[in-house]
Amino acid sequence: MKAVIAEIITIGDEILFGHIVDTNSAWMGTELTKIGVRVKQITSISDSAEHIVQALDAARTRADIILMTGGLGPTRDDLTKHVLTAYFHTTLKLHEPSLADVTEIFRHRGREVTELNRQQAFLPEACTPVRNVLGTAPGMWFEQEGKVFVSMPGVPFEMKRMMTDIVLPQLKAYFRTPHIIHKVVQTVGIAESMLADKLEEWEYSLPEHIKLAYLPHLGGVRLRLTGTGTDAALLDQELQAEVNKLAHIIPNNIFAYGEVKLEEAVGQLLKEQGLTIATAESCTGGYLAHKITSVSGSSAYYRGSVIAYHNEVKIRELHVKPETLQLHGAVSEATVREMAEHVREKFGTDIGVATSGIAGPDGGTAEKPVGTIWIAYADKDRTVTRLLHFNKDRLLNIEYTGTAVLNLVRQSLTAAVEE
Amino acid sequence: MKAVIAEIITIGDEILFGHIVDTNSAWMGTELTKIGVRVKQITSISDSAEHIVQALDAARTRADIILMTGGLGPTRDDLTKHVLTAYFHTTLKLHEPSLADVTEIFRHRGREVTELNRQQAFLPEACTPVRNVLGTAPGMWFEQEGKVFVSMPGVPFEMKRMMTDIVLPQLKAYFRTPHIIHKVVQTVGIAESMLADKLEEWEYSLPEHIKLAYLPHLGGVRLRLTGTGTDAALLDQELQAEVNKLAHIIPNNIFAYGEVKLEEAVGQLLKEQGLTIATAESCTGGYLAHKITSVSGSSAYYRGSVIAYHNEVKIRELHVKPETLQLHGAVSEATVREMAEHVREKFGTDIGVATSGIAGPDGGTAEKPVGTIWIAYADKDRTVTRLLHFNKDRLLNIEYTGTAVLNLVRQSLTAAVEE
Repeated sequence: MKAVIAEIITIGDEILFGHIVDTNSAWMGTELTKIGVRVKQITSISDSAEHIVQALDAARTRADIILMTGGLGPTRDDLTKHVLTAYFHTTLKLHEPSLADVTEIFRHRGREVTELNRQQAFLPEACTPVRNVLGTAPGMWFEQEGKVFVSMPGVPFEMKRMMTDIVLPQLKAYFRTPHIIHKVVQTVGIAESMLADKLEEWEYSLPEHIKLAYLPHLGGVRLRLTGTGTDAALLDQELQAEVNKLAHIIPNNIFAYGEVKLEEAVGQLLKEQGLTIATAESCTGGYLAHKITSVSGSSAYYRGSVIAYHNEVKIRELHVKPETLQLHGAVSEATVREMAEHVREKFGTDIGVATSGIAGPDGGTAEKPVGTIWIAYADKDRTVTRLLHFNKDRLLNIEYTGTAVLNLVRQSLTAAVEE
Repeated sequence: MKAVIAEIITIGDEILFGHIVDTNSAWMGTELTKIGVRVKQITSISDSAEHIVQALDAARTRADIILMTGGLGPTRDDLTKHVLTAYFHTTLKLHEPSLADVTEIFRHRGREVTELNRQQAFLPEACTPVRNVLGTAPGMWFEQEGKVFVSMPGVPFEMKRMMTDIVLPQLKAYFRTPHIIHKVVQTVGIAESMLADKLEEWEYSLPEHIKLAYLPHLGGVRLRLTGTGTDAALLDQELQAEVNKLAHIIPNNIFAYGEVKLEEAVGQLLKEQGLTIATAESCTGGYLAHKITSVSGSSAYYRGSVIAYHNEVKIRELHVKPETLQLHGAVSEATVREMAEHVREKFGTDIGVATSGIAGPDGGTAEKPVGTIWIAYADKDRTVTRLLHFNKDRLLNIEYTGTAVLNLVRQSLTAAVEE
């Protein structure tokens, strides 16, 4: 079976001038790979009619699928729609459902549709409009000589929603691709190189048609097994058998299977065990609470937080003893322990967690350099603390600390042993 | 003066498959723009000889400078050097200074040079080698028909060092480039289409050599003016004059000039005015606090927060009256007003802000659909509230609300009128 080839064309000066990093294409590359489509080239070009046509002409000589992003805004530097209208020898026509969507978005904001936004509902007659539920620019799907051309907005969340809901399923249906099955295993609390050491033997034993990818991110390492075959049921069984082997090798580092975030996995554990949680944050400054509450339905187990950026707040609101602060400092095991225990009492929850550290880039000392962070977990039986050492980057330190606390809660609720 | 045009070609499957995000090209785009070189296209291709030649042939029809990264490693899937040797009809020859560099790197690691790495010191005779002080793959500079081709490693820190020390200065010397100056104006609280309506007349009046770009992101719209000219000082004056005109058209929506985030601008205002702030969050669940504390040095003005996810917490910790909750509900002007006023008192700050709403995707009613959000600002003189209407996406609603609160603080501190 011949591989289906795609190319991505991003339109707009922002990427060329380096004002934004092209994260869209990486996301699209990942998603296309998942459905068995091979990306051959990514091309970033300027908002120029001539250049867009040149890129389309070149891409169609190599690819079956040409995906475009950008240049669909309402302003006059956005040319994509007009160029495509000419390219496919068609004309613009009002697309009533798109106008209804745009009108609804404006109605929801309590405003009248502007003339510029109304213009966005005029689409090339030759295209199948691709609905945009999150913005005012619809996408466009064209077919010509067995090739598919899709134009989407450059706004990442609009493009991703459109791809996920409509474009990827339609591409899968249009092109007959081999069965490709992915299984994702989510790990936390173990670095990529250590993981690779532990998995080496198993990885070498994988059959030819099953590949392993290490996908490290800020909160851990995702492992993705990709199998290719003609019998979907058999392939799924084979993959599951390998996942089971994996679970025996690193039982304590796997927090979920599939596209589940750590905060979702922890939320699920709390729900299952009927437990509630409260947070007391210093160095993470609300990020931990944000992580927990980013999960829909988190109000079932999350009560609230005290963010104590100032020592006075630690004393008054979290009943940290002034002598603890004086003797050990705000960044200390004693302080973070009291914070976790008292926030649990204060909010009447089963669990209290706390963070206190030096996020940086300033504020470090020889004894407690930037990146020194204490975290604590308290329940009715015990309080567990951990000392973390990170680096000089403020936002990374906040992020890593959030992950470490969530993992500490997970370990406590599953009796997992720390690696 | 004709603009000098560059194109960037990245070689390797990692970007195409979405395994890594192409941050190199954004960095190169920024640096090239700074020396007056305009990037016309960025092309990511696979490690295939045919594809590399095709990309080079296409790029040289459009550009004066062709910069390549990647494919210079020691293994056999790294083809760039061999393809360039054939492309420029030359042969490989040992380059003694490069061998000395490679040998030194290995000596430093306490190792002997491997044969594979020794091969990296063989370079095309027709090129000027570009020294790599951080790795084993030297760069290559070719000149042909007045065009410059440079091949560099894909490892970001090696490429950046090579560009900064050697390639950029040599390009500046080789090509006589016009001056290109960018000025960025940050706006908030006005949608792109409304902004475009307001700026239409001014935009049409811009001189030919000054271009305007709308760069919308989740927190607002960045406006970027780009001027091209031969006299840098004059050009800067002209751009500044246009920025000043802009400031007269939308005085209340501009929160900063240059690459400044809203939370940084608000932090700066608080610092300048010697004010402190505390937050009381319901629907934003810590995100607002996280935004504020993501700014280094925020402990100077930020005291802390109560995140009251549960009504009981609103009553006990924020002294919201039970009858307020009963009469008006948690998502109401009365509740959010009490939250802001009481958190201000509780933390002894000059300013208190609060959020309460239905972030979604569940929990909406006919009267208060998902995306209904109340925010409040309180200082010693007054309390200001706003009702916001967003959509069904939980994380977007949280993000937009954070921006709206920060903007409300900014408006209050600058006496800006809301649009």
